[in-house]
Amino acid sequence: DIPQILLSHGGGGRLMHQLIDTLFAAAFGTQATQHDGAVLPVNEGELAFTTDSYVVHPLFFPGGDIGRLAVWGTVNDLAMCGAVPQSLSAGFILEEGLSMETLWQVVQSMQQAAEIAGVRIATGDTKVVERGKGDGMFINTAGVGRVIAPQPVSPRRVRPGDAILLNGDVGRHGMALVQVREGLRFESAIESDCAPLNGMVRELIEGGIDLHCLRDLTRGGLATALVEIAKTSSLSFALEETKIGVTDAVRGACELLGFDPLYVANEGRCVAFVPEKQAESALQIMRRHETGRNAACIGTVEMEARGRVTLHNAFGTTRLLDMLSGDQLPRIC
Amino acid sequence: DIPQILLSHGGGGRLMHQLIDTLFAAAFGTQATQHDGAVLPVNEGELAFTTDSYVVHPLFFPGGDIGRLAVWGTVNDLAMCGAVPQSLSAGFILEEGLSMETLWQVVQSMQQAAEIAGVRIATGDTKVVERGKGDGMFINTAGVGRVIAPQPVSPRRVRPGDAILLNGDVGRHGMALVQVREGLRFESAIESDCAPLNGMVRELIEGGIDLHCLRDLTRGGLATALVEIAKTSSLSFALEETKIGVTDAVRGACELLGFDPLYVANEGRCVAFVPEKQAESALQIMRRHETGRNAACIGTVEMEARGRVTLHNAFGTTRLLDMLSGDQLPRIC
Ligand SMILES: Nc1ncnc2c1ncn2[C@@H]1O[C@H](COP(=O)(O)OP(=O)(O)OP(=O)(O)O)[C@@H](O)[C@H]1O
Ligand SMILES: Nc1ncnc2c1ncn2[C@@H]1O[C@H](COP(=O)(O)OP(=O)(O)OP(=O)(O)O)[C@@H](O)[C@H]1O
Ligand SMILES: [Mg+2]
Ligand SMILES: [Mg+2]
Ligand SMILES: [Mg+2]
Ligand SMILES: [Mg+2]
Ligand SMILES: [Mg+2]
Ligand SMILES: [Mg+2]
Repeated sequence: DIPQILLSHGGGGRLMHQLIDTLFAAAFGTQATQHDGAVLPVNEGELAFTTDSYVVHPLFFPGGDIGRLAVWGTVNDLAMCGAVPQSLSAGFILEEGLSMETLWQVVQSMQQAAEIAGVRIATGDTKVVERGKGDGMFINTAGVGRVIAPQPVSPRRVRPGDAILLNGDVGRHGMALVQVREGLRFESAIESDCAPLNGMVRELIEGGIDLHCLRDLTRGGLATALVEIAKTSSLSFALEETKIGVTDAVRGACELLGFDPLYVANEGRCVAFVPEKQAESALQIMRRHETGRNAACIGTVEMEARGRVTLHNAFGTTRLLDMLSGDQLPRIC
Repeated sequence: DIPQILLSHGGGGRLMHQLIDTLFAAAFGTQATQHDGAVLPVNEGELAFTTDSYVVHPLFFPGGDIGRLAVWGTVNDLAMCGAVPQSLSAGFILEEGLSMETLWQVVQSMQQAAEIAGVRIATGDTKVVERGKGDGMFINTAGVGRVIAPQPVSPRRVRPGDAILLNGDVGRHGMALVQVREGLRFESAIESDCAPLNGMVRELIEGGIDLHCLRDLTRGGLATALVEIAKTSSLSFALEETKIGVTDAVRGACELLGFDPLYVANEGRCVAFVPEKQAESALQIMRRHETGRNAACIGTVEMEARGRVTLHNAFGTTRLLDMLSGDQLPRIC
């Protein structure tokens, strides 16, 4: 009945317990305010464990909101470890004055996103900071999941000859946000690509694909992710620009605003490094998924170990890719 | 060499990777910027999983700092689940302009706290928000640990006749912060009680103590924690006020400022509900620990199931305790 978040909602007393019981625990289906933590059954083996904080601005944007990002972003990082995401934690830092309606919408969106991805939000925390010391809401999620990949999924397992697969077009999430922030009106609005990738990854593993390395293409985009992997593995990658999907809307917005789509953040895109002879069957599995419908092989790992990423374009010229540097888009996730 | 945090430190590019490699990964001993998450070995059994965000103001205070709280607070929530804390995640939300020196100090403090508690900081995340949209730094930690208690540690296992044990004096953490914020000068400065409780809990379990329920006494203090447990278990607790330790300094500050020490936050205190016949041996184990040196039995669980907490004082009168409500201390953790 209180329309806005008060400092007392973080004070540890009656109001906080009411908020947790009626809003968070109610939405997430967790058991009221009873425990200091959650207890989960685990099997012998390997557990993936990851975290991200989400400070995206604005909280709602075409194709998603902070709640979806917070759930799917962490689900995706677990999937990139070759794991089946199991449970998430959700830590909220709320700014005094945040509308209760907004909080409710985000929490509903998180629960929906969790159901879609097949994970539980098992535990959480609620803090409130004074007006002007936060920005509406920040969310941290951490996640755990069981590793099911039979071999490590890691940059160190990338091998010369590996095919580099990409599950769809790049640049949509970042440009969807820029578009909103700058108040731009394109003919067709750009929607974020945010999506859970765990289903697709699981089928790749269960389909017998030997995933040498996975990486989701968040901050820094495709180029930065590949440069990182090249450095860590000390191998070089040759990419074909024409194979990298970019929608006309994203390309147009990037040209207008001076962005390179290869460096723009995504929230539902990843690269997969697989043995060349499994590339075709991996692509078939990916394409069966909504999030992999436009999957393509965008390049290969070269024989020489130089830690470089080169982009070959349609005109036969070549560009060396480096990490994102200089001006960047703040708070896109 | 950059003296302050820039927006680009959260942008996903070169600057962020440098910050992670040279500051976070260097301090925490994690492996550079190589993975989307950490992979940990687990045994078959139960995993405790918990999270807290830390927004304490100021960042440094007598007896501790935000880094210690962030590590030990989450370690303690895992311990309260009857678990041995294993790995933590660390998510940072930094405000543009934060001094690099301050960040470094906090990160060092976290690593030291992790070593003291015997846990690893295994994975993390770094976000930056614009000046005026945060407050120096917020930290979220999540943690996982193996449950070693042979029976569930839960309010539902509290039984009539149980002894209620408390590991030391209450009210220090909250009053240490109030003292700094209000610029008060007491004869002897009040120091936070913040401390890791996992060692003590582990010895209780290994010593064969059947821990029915544990709860650390953070926001809301001793009284709120007990009221919560009474409600969840539908049992009533009778406490003896004279057994509840409060230092003269804390009592004086509370009187001066109108606080009740039973409702003031602690960061190294917990209650343990144990079968009456194990109370003495549990106290002996607790007293062997620095954090349990002044452990005492402060009350018992009554026979009638009314969900009430009553406090009996030296003069023979009785007070009914309720949850903290009304004005509260913001941002004490
Ligand atoms: N935003 C939230 N979403 C889901 N569960 C939550 C949320 N906030 C709190 N909880 C749950 O409510 C219970 C009480 O949370 P609380 O943060 O008070 O416990 P705590 O961490 O032991 O205390 P403190 O945060 O003061 O250290 C826990 O079980 C926690 O998982
Ligand atoms: N503050 C930190 N402390 C410890 N490790 C960190 C910290 N920040 C990042 N890391 C580690 O650095 C690596 C890269 O982190 P990053 O956040 O860029 O990955 P990501 O979560 O996959 O990307 P994004 O946050 O854009 O979704 C990870 O291994 C992460 O655990
Ligand atoms: Mg607790
Ligand atoms: Mg991520
Ligand atoms: Mg908490
Ligand atoms: Mg990632
Ligand atoms: Mg806690
Ligand atoms: Mg991250």
